[in-house]
Amino acid sequence: MKEKIKVAQLGLGPIGIECIKAAASKQWANVIGAVDTAPDKVGSDLGSLTKSRHLRGLNVVGSTAQLERKPDLVFHTTVSSFRTAYEQIAPLARQGIHVVSSCEELVYPRLDEPKLAAKLDRICRDSGARVVGAGVNPGFVMDMLPLCLTGIVREIRAIHVQRVVDAATRREPLQRKIGSGLAPKEFERLLGSGKAGHAGLKQSLGLIAHALGWTFASVVEIGHAIVAERAIRTRYLQVRKGETCGLHQRVEARIMGQLRLTLDLKMYLDAEAPRDAIQIEGNPPLDLVIRGGVSGDQATIAALVNIVPRLLKAEPGLRLLTELVAV
Amino acid sequence: MKEKIKVAQLGLGPIGIECIKAAASKQWANVIGAVDTAPDKVGSDLGSLTKSRHLRGLNVVGSTAQLERKPDLVFHTTVSSFRTAYEQIAPLARQGIHVVSSCEELVYPRLDEPKLAAKLDRICRDSGARVVGAGVNPGFVMDMLPLCLTGIVREIRAIHVQRVVDAATRREPLQRKIGSGLAPKEFERLLGSGKAGHAGLKQSLGLIAHALGWTFASVVEIGHAIVAERAIRTRYLQVRKGETCGLHQRVEARIMGQLRLTLDLKMYLDAEAPRDAIQIEGNPPLDLVIRGGVSGDQATIAALVNIVPRLLKAEPGLRLLTELVAV
Repeated sequence: MKEKIKVAQLGLGPIGIECIKAAASKQWANVIGAVDTAPDKVGSDLGSLTKSRHLRGLNVVGSTAQLERKPDLVFHTTVSSFRTAYEQIAPLARQGIHVVSSCEELVYPRLDEPKLAAKLDRICRDSGARVVGAGVNPGFVMDMLPLCLTGIVREIRAIHVQRVVDAATRREPLQRKIGSGLAPKEFERLLGSGKAGHAGLKQSLGLIAHALGWTFASVVEIGHAIVAERAIRTRYLQVRKGETCGLHQRVEARIMGQLRLTLDLKMYLDAEAPRDAIQIEGNPPLDLVIRGGVSGDQATIAALVNIVPRLLKAEPGLRLLTELVAV
Repeated sequence: MKEKIKVAQLGLGPIGIECIKAAASKQWANVIGAVDTAPDKVGSDLGSLTKSRHLRGLNVVGSTAQLERKPDLVFHTTVSSFRTAYEQIAPLARQGIHVVSSCEELVYPRLDEPKLAAKLDRICRDSGARVVGAGVNPGFVMDMLPLCLTGIVREIRAIHVQRVVDAATRREPLQRKIGSGLAPKEFERLLGSGKAGHAGLKQSLGLIAHALGWTFASVVEIGHAIVAERAIRTRYLQVRKGETCGLHQRVEARIMGQLRLTLDLKMYLDAEAPRDAIQIEGNPPLDLVIRGGVSGDQATIAALVNIVPRLLKAEPGLRLLTELVAV
């Protein structure tokens, strides 16, 4: 990219703050502003808020309409639900503004919201905007990385991914999202109703199925609380013995009775042997492990920022990660 | 792809035979013929030669001009040198025929032959043909897979790849290419003059540098014989104690004195603990290992066949793997 593109940040939580700082370090980016609805953030200096002198002199505004200049691209880091994200992204897309979003459901939005996804895609095609959902999980470890590996496998029979994350090393919202400190029964009720837990396992499954042309006959989702066997204290919170300290979520998908895809996620405080492991049954079989796992928050920020040049090479539309150029 | 594409095979060595068999199993492919210059292959039945009943009734011909029908795409598996491959591929590209090639130097042809690469690219753009070099190494383990991983890393400081291959499990041409049975001094002389050894390490380095926008101040290449400590017998050959049983090749590349990229390849008979390992220094750091390594020959065939749908989505031209859609 020869000309700098004007970028703005929508959402100034921990991920949003790091995201716009990372973008500011890129030669292709010219940061023109940031948006957050929290009253304690609106009006504050972006340089102070992010502790980055490169961002001094830009005031946080309360809505994208209040940005002084129209951005070319917005980093969107506010919610996990595509339905909620849609209301924030559609007005930007209508103006031809590209959006890179951390919204988990946006990694494969047609899974739960095919009509809304088609609507956003039409808006983008009309305006020339490009929108994509990206991240580490969903967006990489449990979908794009296994898909990358399938490129060198014949007769892919099954894909199994295990991710074990030590949530004690992660940001506060994530430590809370996994149920830390709740009674296990209460957390499992929330998990079951979709009001807590990790969003995106189903989206990873959907993206893999889409890319490989697989149609599953059955998909089983399982969600449990992981219970603290001793008191745990993190930088942000405390958990007593017997309370929830994390979650175990798993999806299993079958075709003709055969198990073809399992995505198994354990995220808990002080997890032992954190790692990401991928096994592909096929010819040749592949057995891959990322020792220590992918440290989520820094990787998520990298995923959002690094995708920009690839997104801009794609045709306008609501894009999937599989549709972007490889690097 | 809704309509089947007509595919032909150019080169019926071990990789070529498996490649056209694998292609024949794909819904999108209609195999229309095969070409080899070896007198004992010309005129033989492709079904007998490949031991595949799906390919019965097609006679091997001695040149692409003798194919009964014009293919849409040719799998090219004959040579490692781009200069030699050019003479075989250019006539196809002039007719608008797409080519997927296992030619190692074609993974990053502009490294050694920028003018010839530009010439082939122009031919392709004029005719509508798409040409790409693909494979496992180069093409995946030491370039595309590390590049895929960089997508989730900020401030990429260095990339280190180690590949240890047990050549005893591989095809005969590869066992010979690594010097098996030669006197170590003789093999190192051949290695030094580029007449033996693994082709492609430099191409992997070139592709990574290109994709990341890195310009190396120094690149050091090292090549040694690995000497048999005992007699070794494989399906195809025998090596005595003290003779060459494989090779160790390595490239190291620096920017401003800092080591930024190392690609280290050991391919030898009865190698211990075969594996592929990738370390990325950055934020977050990544430490990945493929246990047992990627079994090369089957994976190479998969790489050639699986790339076809991705190649056909790209613009006409001499393409790099980095320019194709991710999946």
